[in-house]
Amino acid sequence: MLAGTLLLAGCERKPGPATAPRHAAPAASATGATASIPPEDGQWTMPAKDYASTRFSGLDEINASNVQNLKVAFTLSTGVNKGHEAAPLVVGSTMYVVTPYPNDLYALDLTKPGAPAKWKYSPNPSPSSQGVACCDVVNRGVAFAGGKVILNTLDGYTVAVDAGTGKEAWRTRLGDINKGETITMAPLVVHDKVLVGDSGGEFGVRGWLQALDVDSGKPVWKAYHTGPDKDVLIGADFKPYYAMDKGKDLGVASWPPDAWKIGGGTTWGWISYDPELNLIYYGTGNPGPWNAEQRPGDNKWTSGLFARNPDTGAAKWFYQLNPHDVHDYDAINETLLLEVPIDGRMRKVAARAERNGYLYLIDRATGQVLSADPYANVNSSRGVDLKTGRLNINSEKVPQLGKVIRDICPTASGSKDWNPSAFSPRTGLLYIPHENLCMDWENLEANYISGTPYVGAEVRMKAGPGGNRGAFTAWDPVRRAIAWEAKEDLPLWSGALVTAGDVVFYGTMDGWFKALDARSGKPLWQFKCASGIIGQPIAYRGPDGHEYVAVLAGVGGWAGAIVSADLDPRDPTAALGFVGAMADLKQKTTAGGVLYVFSLPGR
Amino acid sequence: MLAGTLLLAGCERKPGPATAPRHAAPAASATGATASIPPEDGQWTMPAKDYASTRFSGLDEINASNVQNLKVAFTLSTGVNKGHEAAPLVVGSTMYVVTPYPNDLYALDLTKPGAPAKWKYSPNPSPSSQGVACCDVVNRGVAFAGGKVILNTLDGYTVAVDAGTGKEAWRTRLGDINKGETITMAPLVVHDKVLVGDSGGEFGVRGWLQALDVDSGKPVWKAYHTGPDKDVLIGADFKPYYAMDKGKDLGVASWPPDAWKIGGGTTWGWISYDPELNLIYYGTGNPGPWNAEQRPGDNKWTSGLFARNPDTGAAKWFYQLNPHDVHDYDAINETLLLEVPIDGRMRKVAARAERNGYLYLIDRATGQVLSADPYANVNSSRGVDLKTGRLNINSEKVPQLGKVIRDICPTASGSKDWNPSAFSPRTGLLYIPHENLCMDWENLEANYISGTPYVGAEVRMKAGPGGNRGAFTAWDPVRRAIAWEAKEDLPLWSGALVTAGDVVFYGTMDGWFKALDARSGKPLWQFKCASGIIGQPIAYRGPDGHEYVAVLAGVGGWAGAIVSADLDPRDPTAALGFVGAMADLKQKTTAGGVLYVFSLPGR
Repeated sequence: MLAGTLLLAGCERKPGPATAPRHAAPAASATGATASIPPEDGQWTMPAKDYASTRFSGLDEINASNVQNLKVAFTLSTGVNKGHEAAPLVVGSTMYVVTPYPNDLYALDLTKPGAPAKWKYSPNPSPSSQGVACCDVVNRGVAFAGGKVILNTLDGYTVAVDAGTGKEAWRTRLGDINKGETITMAPLVVHDKVLVGDSGGEFGVRGWLQALDVDSGKPVWKAYHTGPDKDVLIGADFKPYYAMDKGKDLGVASWPPDAWKIGGGTTWGWISYDPELNLIYYGTGNPGPWNAEQRPGDNKWTSGLFARNPDTGAAKWFYQLNPHDVHDYDAINETLLLEVPIDGRMRKVAARAERNGYLYLIDRATGQVLSADPYANVNSSRGVDLKTGRLNINSEKVPQLGKVIRDICPTASGSKDWNPSAFSPRTGLLYIPHENLCMDWENLEANYISGTPYVGAEVRMKAGPGGNRGAFTAWDPVRRAIAWEAKEDLPLWSGALVTAGDVVFYGTMDGWFKALDARSGKPLWQFKCASGIIGQPIAYRGPDGHEYVAVLAGVGGWAGAIVSADLDPRDPTAALGFVGAMADLKQKTTAGGVLYVFSLPGR
Repeated sequence: MLAGTLLLAGCERKPGPATAPRHAAPAASATGATASIPPEDGQWTMPAKDYASTRFSGLDEINASNVQNLKVAFTLSTGVNKGHEAAPLVVGSTMYVVTPYPNDLYALDLTKPGAPAKWKYSPNPSPSSQGVACCDVVNRGVAFAGGKVILNTLDGYTVAVDAGTGKEAWRTRLGDINKGETITMAPLVVHDKVLVGDSGGEFGVRGWLQALDVDSGKPVWKAYHTGPDKDVLIGADFKPYYAMDKGKDLGVASWPPDAWKIGGGTTWGWISYDPELNLIYYGTGNPGPWNAEQRPGDNKWTSGLFARNPDTGAAKWFYQLNPHDVHDYDAINETLLLEVPIDGRMRKVAARAERNGYLYLIDRATGQVLSADPYANVNSSRGVDLKTGRLNINSEKVPQLGKVIRDICPTASGSKDWNPSAFSPRTGLLYIPHENLCMDWENLEANYISGTPYVGAEVRMKAGPGGNRGAFTAWDPVRRAIAWEAKEDLPLWSGALVTAGDVVFYGTMDGWFKALDARSGKPLWQFKCASGIIGQPIAYRGPDGHEYVAVLAGVGGWAGAIVSADLDPRDPTAALGFVGAMADLKQKTTAGGVLYVFSLPGR
């Protein structure tokens, strides 16, 4: 048992329906958490920076004492007025930038900052794909491997493009937009496999992760997230930690008859990789429909975390973060692979700031939950039972048909959605850009029609306790408490970046790109970008040897759809209820996709 | 007679079909040209800065010795991917920014740089207006008067908006998009009149200028540019200088029967005002159709310069710059009101860098042409006869039905199009951002159908002599020669700004915003904006007392329609032939509208 006798992590620290995180003094990094991070090479070759998904840059030219001098080095419009969630990549002296639909890919020669793109690749996705993208037509980034840039398109293709010429090397169709299947996640390449999952949990699709051969694009394996074990690639190696995740064909048995066929469990978020254990970690999306009364059972293998062998796809373990999810708490958020001292012993953990509001530390080898602490306001559950692994749902906050359940915290979008955290081995802190929203929810009857929304809920979101709709939280995984926190008026929908200069960067939905002191949270610098920021900042060393920081501005995504899709602010249920919390966003920012690259003066 | 015996200005200086400008050493400003410029108040209250249209800012904090430190202060996306030709206005501590269609107007509080707009006004023009805009859906700026911002909409309205609240004060319909009438020009307010003209010379509209009462929006007078004298407001006061512009009802008599009713002569460019003479100056657009074989005669009062009383509209004089225009040489360019020493005497002149390639100095009071010198490569004409005022057309370059006439210079878009020059009383130089293009032209039969294109020409544009498609030319109006010139790869389609810091600013269509030494042309600084620049830069003093420079990036316009309208680069005749010269623009920039505000560090 961990943390003494605290079997029920989270709510035990505070009575009442709403749990709240503890605060702690900043940790000394020497005794704190760390991570296996390759030596800094000045590049940024995958959206998460490294397989451990730390989004930590070892560059320190830009630091807490000079970041206030940061200036715009150059800018580039993408000409796309939709949500820009992608991280640029920097490989050698080239930057790769991908846009939301139409998923154009630009290669910029960093030896000539501001010069025209070396090449532009346009995959020309089917325009119909826009109609089945639940929450804006976003793309979260590309992968680089073996001289190729790997790109997912909204209409369900994975494409490899020659990194030097921009010529298409291969193109493989994985999704079917006629069923509502799109692809928005960033691929990850492990060994010779390109790993790709689908989106469409609001359209009754069946979630999966696929591996393609990086040279040919040929499918190698495919693991579904509902259905019989053989479809899920559950075999002899599968050893889940908790009893609730054990049993034969749970992907069928934990559903009403045939419901697993349209049950969601998509893979539109992040994959991490532990080379030592040779395991990938990724979460599955919400079960469909949102109306959980239509799908009694645990709805395996939705809303949980898989560990798989990347070469075969064979499942090693699974942990269901939200069994029988009733609140749309996808488990697709990023997994940071850290080493954390727990009870005097360094543990290899998967650290996850979950949509359900808990910061989980999970044993990477076994799937055992070591701790689960609320990092934000939560009343939808009362903590995690560390003995059973089960989330203890607050029965007062369970949606019902024909009744509005009020003030559920967090919202369907979670305490944190897809937008990734960062971790610094220098400070030992996790940096979590997140939300502080609550919601009213009424279940409705959902009817499945292929390629149309399959949701069954009317939701209205609003600001959470305190009124600040967002927060940037530095979390100490050793003390299991907040080190410092910067409150934000708007929900945070951008990623975080932390550097060896001990500066953290993130953007706000009204366009401020901010730098804070990574140790204290002290605001150091901010710049007003052309549009709200929901992209993922990166840092790199330019061909001139100097450090640059880059981010895509371009408001949108689920939270910003009111702007990117020009929704009526008078309908709080629009954008699956998000407009209720964002009625003022149109007054605060404008659409537009612009790459910003920053540097110190004289660069 | 002027300049000795040089009656035929322009080509007399160089034999052969192509005329070329002289070069001269930089002029000493003390003995040079000057202008009546009000004392600098740090604002920018009309697109041309002042009634003399100098676009000169008296601010000098940013100067030739520190401009290399200029940095981006803040940015704002307009969310509009069309050509941004407008100048921002700065009145007090508020900046007003207008977009292309849908003509949204933003009010930005400069005391809070980067803060959300104080208000946004959306006139919601008819979407159909986009279909009758010949050359992108541009807007060239707004006017400010009496606490109101005056805005023209693409669908033919003039709207006054309360500058404090953004509430609509009045709205007057002036144009009829069903006939192809749009409005793209910036209004000018003189006394209590708002002056507005129409666009649509490629749709067989009938050009006009109207005056509206600034308080009520009620029409006060309307002067047509074709038709009987009474329609043109030609009366007893009308005293043109040249015989060719004298006669009764020339707006009818110089046309085939009824052709004047669909003859163009629109007013989509610039108006200047001389308070001393109480005269406004503005030019009229091309006659329609482009195929001049269908309209024998001089086609009054198209393609010429009007001087009018702003209170009554009564015409004072007219000078037809391009009688019977055969090359689409609109005369809508800006008129700079200068005082220039000529033959030992200061003359009040209207200085105009014309589309036909000549820099005219015209007596403001009489309409007499004092000189007309080529400032760019011209072979379509052989100078101006100063005795008759008549442009001497090169018969070898006159388009014909069924025959391609090759290598006509300049193109239909002119040596310079609408994008305005600047003048510094400190250097005595005119700063002309312009083009260096030639074209092949074949006349086609044009048929008039209301609300559809009425052109009758197939044009292919290309780079002019030397291969540089653009140039930024500093012109000495005293020596009537080029002081210095910066060649540009792409045509220049942005305006020019010159400041008392002796810096000139302009933008390129691939997004570089540039600062040059106003005296020498030496490049001092450049910054890569998100999209190509066709806007008009301005300078102002912020509420903090410091100087700022602002410009809208956002490629498009006629020259950039290949990007903003996503035209096929393989069709050189697209965009009325401009795509022929711009096939590479898609590789060099991307669409997107972004306001950039620059300042020195620490501001």
